[in-house]
Amino acid sequence: MSGLGVIPIADIPEVVAGELLADLIAAAAAAQGTPVLDGDCIVVTQKIVSKAEGRIVPLAPDDLDARRELIERESSRILRRRGDLFISETTHGFVCANAGIDLSNVDDGSAALLPVDSDRSARKIRDGLRARHGVDVAVVISDTFGRAWRRGLTDVAIGVAGLAAVVDLRGSSDARGRELFATEVAVADEVASAAELVMGKAAGIPAAIVRGLDPTWFRESAVAELIRPPAEDLFR
Amino acid sequence: MSGLGVIPIADIPEVVAGELLADLIAAAAAAQGTPVLDGDCIVVTQKIVSKAEGRIVPLAPDDLDARRELIERESSRILRRRGDLFISETTHGFVCANAGIDLSNVDDGSAALLPVDSDRSARKIRDGLRARHGVDVAVVISDTFGRAWRRGLTDVAIGVAGLAAVVDLRGSSDARGRELFATEVAVADEVASAAELVMGKAAGIPAAIVRGLDPTWFRESAVAELIRPPAEDLFR
Repeated sequence: MSGLGVIPIADIPEVVAGELLADLIAAAAAAQGTPVLDGDCIVVTQKIVSKAEGRIVPLAPDDLDARRELIERESSRILRRRGDLFISETTHGFVCANAGIDLSNVDDGSAALLPVDSDRSARKIRDGLRARHGVDVAVVISDTFGRAWRRGLTDVAIGVAGLAAVVDLRGSSDARGRELFATEVAVADEVASAAELVMGKAAGIPAAIVRGLDPTWFRESAVAELIRPPAEDLFR
Repeated sequence: MSGLGVIPIADIPEVVAGELLADLIAAAAAAQGTPVLDGDCIVVTQKIVSKAEGRIVPLAPDDLDARRELIERESSRILRRRGDLFISETTHGFVCANAGIDLSNVDDGSAALLPVDSDRSARKIRDGLRARHGVDVAVVISDTFGRAWRRGLTDVAIGVAGLAAVVDLRGSSDARGRELFATEVAVADEVASAAELVMGKAAGIPAAIVRGLDPTWFRESAVAELIRPPAEDLFR
């Protein structure tokens, strides 16, 4: 029996530009009695990554023109529009609402843009935890996206370091010894979703530890593994 | 600090039609030293539910015509087709590949159809655990679906009992006291994804315990909460 633990990291102080998230995370986890350990995967929400990286821009809440310009600037392509809602492909290749621009949990009159390169953001946290805190972990940067077909939002990975974004089980056998097909599992997305269950949108918990993941999933990776090329996509 | 535990339930014997999954689950969980407890959420994969409910039909592996007929019979609408892959809307309203018909982990020459009513399947397991094992739990029936836009599969809920499929945080305030928008969280899908992380496609583990979920999420519910009506859907 090898289970998972999902531990919220509470009491991370308000993040300002230039701060080292690795230090904030290590300190908060230790302070609550659950220090970060080798083999953990740390899930960090986009919001505090964007704040630490200074990706906060002014945006008046009622200025719909400025909002639209910002969405267009952060997008390579608008896929659908309904009223104020834009579904676009971001410059990173993510398909999400409003180019991932976030108005909650930031100061009034400002908006949080997605990190420029969330894999790099994840690596920086991972490297910081290793170099300054002596722990070897994986890091997932998470954000809250909608889906086609299904109602409700789920958290997904927008950046990874040290954890397979997708685990390819093709060619493995199922429990009856027959070859499996179509079994690329989006492990990093499932890790982000698991972490969301302890963070809660309103609770202001911006990070969590996922402990007990399969050690074979720890490898160099990139979130691009999770991006379906438009040519492969039957719904774009 | 209130974390989650995700515990695989191993060594559930091969399931045949008519078996009571509640009993198999309770026995296997107890045998491995992690008995089911009040407040747990039990995630059960579609495969063993379909087997217990006799939703196994003969299908020769190479008979593509029969395969296609079966997919059409289980679908209300075919949305896309590429080669052997059909993306359809099932009679339940799910959008997934091949109407959710599954060829892995079943006998050669047969296929597992989705349960007729997975909410009912979930209720039956929930009621059985309460009536015969004295534990008050929620149940999620999970299946492995692809997504538009993103590569890799994730587990989602296809049936629920006693757990909110979607938690509506609209109108709650964020950590800065500002009203949140667009915060309907697909909790049952995230629970299914968390459970998948300990099941592993190839490991043959068909159920898991998710322990420590927010008690306010335990309520009567239906998986229909997760189905986006086609008229609302910008991608159908």
